[in-house]
Amino acid sequence: MSEKFYSYHHLFSFTKAVLEKLGCSEEHAELATKVLLSADLRGVDSHGVARLSGYVRLWEAKRANMQPVIKVIHETPSTAVVDGDGGLGLVVAPYAMQLAIDKAKNVGTGWVSVQHSNHFGVAAYHAMMALPHDMIGITMTNASPLVAPTFSTERLLGTNPICVVVPAGEEPPFVADLATTTAANGKLEILQRKSQHAPTGWIQDKDGNISTNPHELKSGGALLPLGGDRDHGSHKGYALGAIVDIFSAVLSGANYGPWVPPFPAYVPMPTEMPGKGIGHFFGAMRIDAFRPSEDFKFHMDKWIRRFRSAKTVDGEEQVLIPGDPEREMEQNRLETGIPLLPAVAEDLQYLGEKLGVSFEID
Amino acid sequence: MSEKFYSYHHLFSFTKAVLEKLGCSEEHAELATKVLLSADLRGVDSHGVARLSGYVRLWEAKRANMQPVIKVIHETPSTAVVDGDGGLGLVVAPYAMQLAIDKAKNVGTGWVSVQHSNHFGVAAYHAMMALPHDMIGITMTNASPLVAPTFSTERLLGTNPICVVVPAGEEPPFVADLATTTAANGKLEILQRKSQHAPTGWIQDKDGNISTNPHELKSGGALLPLGGDRDHGSHKGYALGAIVDIFSAVLSGANYGPWVPPFPAYVPMPTEMPGKGIGHFFGAMRIDAFRPSEDFKFHMDKWIRRFRSAKTVDGEEQVLIPGDPEREMEQNRLETGIPLLPAVAEDLQYLGEKLGVSFEID
Repeated sequence: MSEKFYSYHHLFSFTKAVLEKLGCSEEHAELATKVLLSADLRGVDSHGVARLSGYVRLWEAKRANMQPVIKVIHETPSTAVVDGDGGLGLVVAPYAMQLAIDKAKNVGTGWVSVQHSNHFGVAAYHAMMALPHDMIGITMTNASPLVAPTFSTERLLGTNPICVVVPAGEEPPFVADLATTTAANGKLEILQRKSQHAPTGWIQDKDGNISTNPHELKSGGALLPLGGDRDHGSHKGYALGAIVDIFSAVLSGANYGPWVPPFPAYVPMPTEMPGKGIGHFFGAMRIDAFRPSEDFKFHMDKWIRRFRSAKTVDGEEQVLIPGDPEREMEQNRLETGIPLLPAVAEDLQYLGEKLGVSFEID
Repeated sequence: MSEKFYSYHHLFSFTKAVLEKLGCSEEHAELATKVLLSADLRGVDSHGVARLSGYVRLWEAKRANMQPVIKVIHETPSTAVVDGDGGLGLVVAPYAMQLAIDKAKNVGTGWVSVQHSNHFGVAAYHAMMALPHDMIGITMTNASPLVAPTFSTERLLGTNPICVVVPAGEEPPFVADLATTTAANGKLEILQRKSQHAPTGWIQDKDGNISTNPHELKSGGALLPLGGDRDHGSHKGYALGAIVDIFSAVLSGANYGPWVPPFPAYVPMPTEMPGKGIGHFFGAMRIDAFRPSEDFKFHMDKWIRRFRSAKTVDGEEQVLIPGDPEREMEQNRLETGIPLLPAVAEDLQYLGEKLGVSFEID
């Protein structure tokens, strides 16, 4: 069955109404919807409205608090730790990023580590909050353990993304948003739906052997750190994922490593919990805390143009700047709508019926 | 021919004397030697005393200033830009890292971007300066363009390492120091000496085809970003290398991208120079700017022990913590000495004769 297109406006109203039914304030429902749908607009379909029912199941399992009292529990002029009170990461993260921005306004940079949160959607949304302030934005989060460190058969890390966003002048901003694995879990889901094999270097089986079966994680297999194997630098991907885990959770007092609470509500909680909820990390650096913004932007434009105009290998049109594909996707989808797989649309319709919100599939 | 072992003390006296002959103050010569030899101790042979003659050639070519007046040219409470005055990165980097540490003492974190510097040796030395202060240390640097971004046949980035160092309690610190390429250039040099092929995914030829020839860079080939190819996430390695370039150079006013001055003095300088020298970036975050150090260290120890005791794939003894191999190497080499290839020892002997410093090969 083919995908059907839904307008941003339609999905926005529906999602916001669903979140209000769960007890979110109008303000939180609107913010969470904006964050969630920014994933759909940017083409990160695995982190968008397709996850809405996952958030609802977290709420049903009493693993997410829809009326959180988010608060700062420790701070210095350039740092803070935020307690998300078990709220949706979709609202906790913008709070923490705004705090990082405010601190950067005062002392040049701001760094906020967050405990007791939940899945925060796409990292890029939060980091990009820095752009209108002429700041560099940084976002990280830990996540359900699906990744085996180099030489391990156990899953001890999440796909732990790093996002770094840099403003430019006339050019669009540089937006790098990357899981620290060879391939994000969402890409496996696409292969599963299409019944295709994964390239080697993406996953291993339960004993650590090479596997190309996209269903391998259901039988004890694991995603592999960026690099794939030791010869190709998987110890670097593992180190990057570890840094994200430490900054997001060991620094804040959240759960880390294999003890991160799983996003799917049907997966049992870890029996041991060394911290609270999942953890995130946010940074904001004011450009003019280093050099005048205009100078920086002149050179950032020059950087971007030089890379974009590089000679390409045969068959490739252009060297891309991080953020190019997602920006193009966003422009398209705002015009033509967001495509949803029939299974996703049905899931949303079912959700709507259960909560008394019309999804109106016509 | 086999390697011969030299004591740390011997190599220290020799290197320091050579640097003094170039005009370094005793203080700078001692510091630069300490930084340079920390690479040899940690087993990063490509960045240690084997490079000494390379630094001398930079001085001969008037590309390095042995009596730099290093100064802060811009600052806020948590940030600064440092002008290295064309000095050796080996002395400029510790100055800038110390400044980051001092700022962290005052406002929780410190972030310093550096222009007008040269190669700074191993990143880990500088980042590890944070450890005695119970701080997380971060170091980055850009470098001579040897790396082709995804889809490019042109070399536009250096191996641009990221180093993150985290203190623990009873466990040794977490020390991740990684080039943002599949393999560092030093590994190619080892294959060249052994006349062995490189694994696929490390390098491409001048047209962007897969190559396993470790000499490929001499005929227009390039190192590949971590990931190797698009299917295996090379766009992520490219983004990470780009972030290092931007933080180190676009933020500070150093040269970036293809315009970074080359380390080998026989390679002509770029005809265009949008900045000054090469760039670095340093960060220090006080642990207790987030949570009490004792709490953090308790959990960091727990993190390290859980990962180190993970079940391994057949044939592997243990899951390693970033920094484990280098720390073990350092303990060994302090006892047994530092092995140098005959070619390196001869090069040092020749250097000594030229400058009137005895290398005393016995």
